[in-house]
Amino acid sequence: MSGRSIFGHVDISALREQFPVLGRLAYLNAGTDGPLPVRARDAAAAELERELGEGRAHAHFERRAQLSAALRQEYAAVLGCATDDLALTSGTSEGLSIVVEGLRLGAGDEILTSDEEHPGLLGALQAVRDLAGVRIRVAPFQELANAVTPTTTLVACSHVNWTRGAFAPAELAEVDVPVVFDGAQGAGAVPIDLAALGCDAYAAAGQKWLCGPDGTGLLYVGPKLRERLAVTRRSYANLADGSAGLAADLQPDARRFDTASLSAEAVATAGAAVGVLADFGWSALHGRAISLAERFASRLAEVGRTVAPRGPSTLVSFSSVDPEAERERLSAAGVVVRSLPGGQWLRASVGAWNDESDLERLLAALDR
Amino acid sequence: MSGRSIFGHVDISALREQFPVLGRLAYLNAGTDGPLPVRARDAAAAELERELGEGRAHAHFERRAQLSAALRQEYAAVLGCATDDLALTSGTSEGLSIVVEGLRLGAGDEILTSDEEHPGLLGALQAVRDLAGVRIRVAPFQELANAVTPTTTLVACSHVNWTRGAFAPAELAEVDVPVVFDGAQGAGAVPIDLAALGCDAYAAAGQKWLCGPDGTGLLYVGPKLRERLAVTRRSYANLADGSAGLAADLQPDARRFDTASLSAEAVATAGAAVGVLADFGWSALHGRAISLAERFASRLAEVGRTVAPRGPSTLVSFSSVDPEAERERLSAAGVVVRSLPGGQWLRASVGAWNDESDLERLLAALDR
Repeated sequence: MSGRSIFGHVDISALREQFPVLGRLAYLNAGTDGPLPVRARDAAAAELERELGEGRAHAHFERRAQLSAALRQEYAAVLGCATDDLALTSGTSEGLSIVVEGLRLGAGDEILTSDEEHPGLLGALQAVRDLAGVRIRVAPFQELANAVTPTTTLVACSHVNWTRGAFAPAELAEVDVPVVFDGAQGAGAVPIDLAALGCDAYAAAGQKWLCGPDGTGLLYVGPKLRERLAVTRRSYANLADGSAGLAADLQPDARRFDTASLSAEAVATAGAAVGVLADFGWSALHGRAISLAERFASRLAEVGRTVAPRGPSTLVSFSSVDPEAERERLSAAGVVVRSLPGGQWLRASVGAWNDESDLERLLAALDR
Repeated sequence: MSGRSIFGHVDISALREQFPVLGRLAYLNAGTDGPLPVRARDAAAAELERELGEGRAHAHFERRAQLSAALRQEYAAVLGCATDDLALTSGTSEGLSIVVEGLRLGAGDEILTSDEEHPGLLGALQAVRDLAGVRIRVAPFQELANAVTPTTTLVACSHVNWTRGAFAPAELAEVDVPVVFDGAQGAGAVPIDLAALGCDAYAAAGQKWLCGPDGTGLLYVGPKLRERLAVTRRSYANLADGSAGLAADLQPDARRFDTASLSAEAVATAGAAVGVLADFGWSALHGRAISLAERFASRLAEVGRTVAPRGPSTLVSFSSVDPEAERERLSAAGVVVRSLPGGQWLRASVGAWNDESDLERLLAALDR
């Protein structure tokens, strides 16, 4: 199956058919968890059926390894990196922790971050602050590049921030210290050019814009950083030769950073979901989602909502007098958005799978 | 459904019906991955169907939290501990890493371990050796209690070892330093009395003797150790109030050690699997499995195989001239065991779901 037309546009009805939730709800929540495609559910069911009937022994572990290799390839294509530089994780938080811990910073070090970061990154920063005495300095998101000083050891921030879909300053590509991006709202949502971003690591989620299961994720670690990055947690998956015991070497490539255990069914689900999207073509998907999100932003402004300053991303945060109450009312009307902490904003996540009808449903359901 | 007879014996045919693989194979591999029960597959399918049709938003995260709380209760019942002391992990390796890292040992410290440990524990030990300069001292498994000296800071070893199903010396309950057990071959397989074991932490697997999915596990951390144990990795799941940003407090209980992200479908699968077993009654299951394993050991000895010294556990390791070739031949004959590194042993994992027919199939398929 392919939904790609010869003109590179997305065949939206074929795409939407993959996502049953779209037939019922105006589902605008991929910034939390994406819609799950039928093909992903079917892949999970097939793996579970195999495990049920055949058990989980030698052939099962070979199957898991094959599925993991295939998922690594799919994820690497999303980020445009080599498979050797791509680790499989349980999500963005784990990927960020692997990098922030692995640098083994201490009391003389400073991590620069922004005032609009997600708890997934803040948890990792908190840990090295509390346990290793690393200084965490917070600057306004848009000022990050200017805020780098000679005392800065690492920049850790969003590529696209979760609060309003703004992009990190392009000037971060020029700073002299390593940059790790929280790519939770980037991977799958917007085009990613790692070379242009100039980042050394990029951590992202499998369950958001890549429409996979909770508990999956991806971590790019560039070759330069890989040499510097200690492997702080080690399981069988990270060892090149587990049977060598305490003398075992680490995997030579990014598998040294892989999460300890992803089930065959989770990996198959994630891979099938990415496959559904890849079949339609990333460029066409990104173009469609970004322009649709722009339309959401314009129409929301027209009906009197303040739209938070954003980039050409897939998130649209708009003002609400009582976001939690309005979220619940929207949900009751079949429109799924999320409220943001702070009591002022609702956030609509707009994917290529959404369409004009979802926008109209949102507008009709809003309090005027 | 309950398979418990009024006499506390296991209704074996009702139990075996839950495991379709047993209708085809003499499946003796729970020490790697247990057989998956029908009810667990059905629970996964139901969650995926819900996610497919309803999406994954507010109600989804409430459902995940409910499922996690229920699984924590099931796991706590397996170990006989309070739910407040039970963390959900991705497997034994992660649980062991959480403890070994969290003690923040350094160059003056020594971890005592044995010469028969699994790479899942050795990886964690290797990490603190290489990164923090902790000394790792290796003693014969059965000599561990005597090998504790004033320089020992922590004992980290199997409760039941994976190589031959022997038990750690009971005298470890009396040593003056913290003890963390690798319980991968303990939890679900044999009775566990944490107070009698005298351990401070017990890490185990969801996918082995608890018949759940890969990527699930449990970690007991006793109240005394919890206060000493730093939370080295922190995600949203570990924070009491993620919206407090860098000022967020850790969860007050063992949730501070929870793995970052377990999917609803994985948690539901794990919970349903444990539920199948719990319905039959742990005591009856343990009794049946341990006596059946003893019978495997006797019969294997009768046909001339050397059985490695073992305890009253569910693992039976027996000699083989060419274990890898014999494992493959057994597999072709529908008998699933594993070969162990070192080139001398095959290992049969005997669960309460196995029966005399599995033993006969194994014996018939062995080279004589």
